Amino acid sequence: MRGSRLHKDPVTQRWVVISPDRDELPRPELSMVPSGLPAEACPFCPGNEGKTGPEIYVERQPGSSKNGPGWWVRVVPDRHPILHIEGGLEKSAEGMYDSMNAIGAHEILIETPAHDGHWADLEVLQIERVLRACQQRNLDLRNDVRFRHVIWVKNQGVSASLLHHPHSHIVASPFIPRAIEEELKGFGDHVRWKERCVLCDMVRQESAVGRRIVLREGGILVFEPFAPRFPYESWIVPTEHGHDFGATRAPVLRDLARAIQGALSRIRRLMKDPPYSLVLHSSPLGEFTREEYHWHFELVPRPPQALGLEWGTGIYINPIPPEVAAERLRQAVE
Amino acid sequence: MRGSRLHKDPVTQRWVVISPDRDELPRPELSMVPSGLPAEACPFCPGNEGKTGPEIYVERQPGSSKNGPGWWVRVVPDRHPILHIEGGLEKSAEGMYDSMNAIGAHEILIETPAHDGHWADLEVLQIERVLRACQQRNLDLRNDVRFRHVIWVKNQGVSASLLHHPHSHIVASPFIPRAIEEELKGFGDHVRWKERCVLCDMVRQESAVGRRIVLREGGILVFEPFAPRFPYESWIVPTEHGHDFGATRAPVLRDLARAIQGALSRIRRLMKDPPYSLVLHSSPLGEFTREEYHWHFELVPRPPQALGLEWGTGIYINPIPPEVAAERLRQAVE
Repeated sequence: MRGSRLHKDPVTQRWVVISPDRDELPRPELSMVPSGLPAEACPFCPGNEGKTGPEIYVERQPGSSKNGPGWWVRVVPDRHPILHIEGGLEKSAEGMYDSMNAIGAHEILIETPAHDGHWADLEVLQIERVLRACQQRNLDLRNDVRFRHVIWVKNQGVSASLLHHPHSHIVASPFIPRAIEEELKGFGDHVRWKERCVLCDMVRQESAVGRRIVLREGGILVFEPFAPRFPYESWIVPTEHGHDFGATRAPVLRDLARAIQGALSRIRRLMKDPPYSLVLHSSPLGEFTREEYHWHFELVPRPPQALGLEWGTGIYINPIPPEVAAERLRQAVE
Repeated sequence: MRGSRLHKDPVTQRWVVISPDRDELPRPELSMVPSGLPAEACPFCPGNEGKTGPEIYVERQPGSSKNGPGWWVRVVPDRHPILHIEGGLEKSAEGMYDSMNAIGAHEILIETPAHDGHWADLEVLQIERVLRACQQRNLDLRNDVRFRHVIWVKNQGVSASLLHHPHSHIVASPFIPRAIEEELKGFGDHVRWKERCVLCDMVRQESAVGRRIVLREGGILVFEPFAPRFPYESWIVPTEHGHDFGATRAPVLRDLARAIQGALSRIRRLMKDPPYSLVLHSSPLGEFTREEYHWHFELVPRPPQALGLEWGTGIYINPIPPEVAAERLRQAVE
């Protein structure tokens, strides 16, 4: 732990993770081993279950043993968590500034036993298992009253991620990430002005116009948003309003698996297997939940390097506390 | 021009530049020539003035000729502008969506005749000239009533910038960039609650505490903000309140030149000459100006790749219109 703290910027009210223990890691993200590592040494491959923490959630073959081979999907604690599960929030002030302990959950969802799997090649059933694991962790983590929000982020082929084996991150935070806050304001304003959901309005208009639609799978629409920040940014949206991904019913989860796979296989073909980031946007939890929110996934191929978490959620992680940085800069006189 | 448009996201209200003419450029940023180009071929070197557009602003030696050698600093139009100067805004609706022409100004500030200059090595007088040029362009551009804001961004050594010769970008926009809007809300809230400027409060607290201060030069304080998003992110702030960089007096501009140089030379020494981004944050213009704002510069060493404009200002530039992206993805069936 060693004093990992959340600092709030007094101008923008943005929380930043100041995480000194990450200063010694080779890279900003998790992991201990270089990518392209042979499967024997990969901590996410079957047979190497002992190299990760114990299973938090698993779907496995009948008769197979806990923390042993025979699983289809597996959720374990991150070895180098951004946020730590132990302790209280211990909110405190330093003059005008607010800070609290970097409390939260940071889990790894191992998405398939296959070391080299691409989502475009997985069975739809397997993608469903991943989405169900994501949903079940979301439902479980909300029992912890310290958490206000749960995000799920997948970075595939992004250089920040040193581990090649398909996996994603689940992060429960004691604050609402900036990207979600911005959207909440937009959903709230639209409801006040129009008494309608802005994303339901978009789904209706996109369906009527058709030009920005990539594909439709049952209850899920994939389209290019009117103001995409990045080339081929795609939104994956349930056509029926729902604020809480945790409440998604099984048939919609199946449509979602097909839709995500369809979008990813098109992007792989068009852009020659680019890296991509896929982020779940869902309502905050408990007293912070908002029924006018509309859950969806945002898919960005070739995201700006190492920015999976930052662009997708607005959560910044900085390994060097400002006091340490200032001290080092003061001494660095040429 | 070819239909470069601004699209507004209906959820977050963020304006994005959809700039199809940039699709054919080798890189997201300006430029025609690889970095490390010999000075003979560099369009920003003395003797090659004919390779840029005509001077918009210049400080030059007495007796030297317009658009010829003998200048100290020089502002010219960008060859591949993000926003275009000609035409009307032509705001329009497509159902629920808002768009307008990508009108604005995009100028290049050539900061020194020396092809290899680093700000840490320039004469303070030369940095003053650069800051004065930035100020004068800011004052001139506000005469165009279409513009609501002017930013100034310098990316040094960042891979997005293909030209090695020291230069920076001046961009006048018909909307307020998202990063400035976020700050405006924070300044406004603080004034309402406390009847004080939040950045003046920070300057007072940092001065009293001292631990996050990097250096002070007369009326300018350089410190690490309490919630830095990036390692060694530094804020360069006038200690006396002022919302408008355009109104800065000459002695403060001199202190500012010394302060920026001091910060950059420390960062160069500590981080072994890293790339960096330096961004001016100043109040919007005309009827959108806000006296509670407090202008400052934000300095980020080793910024996430190619994100100079995005992280610094929240302006995203996307060369591929969503309709084109959707069409290509629909056809990319594996």
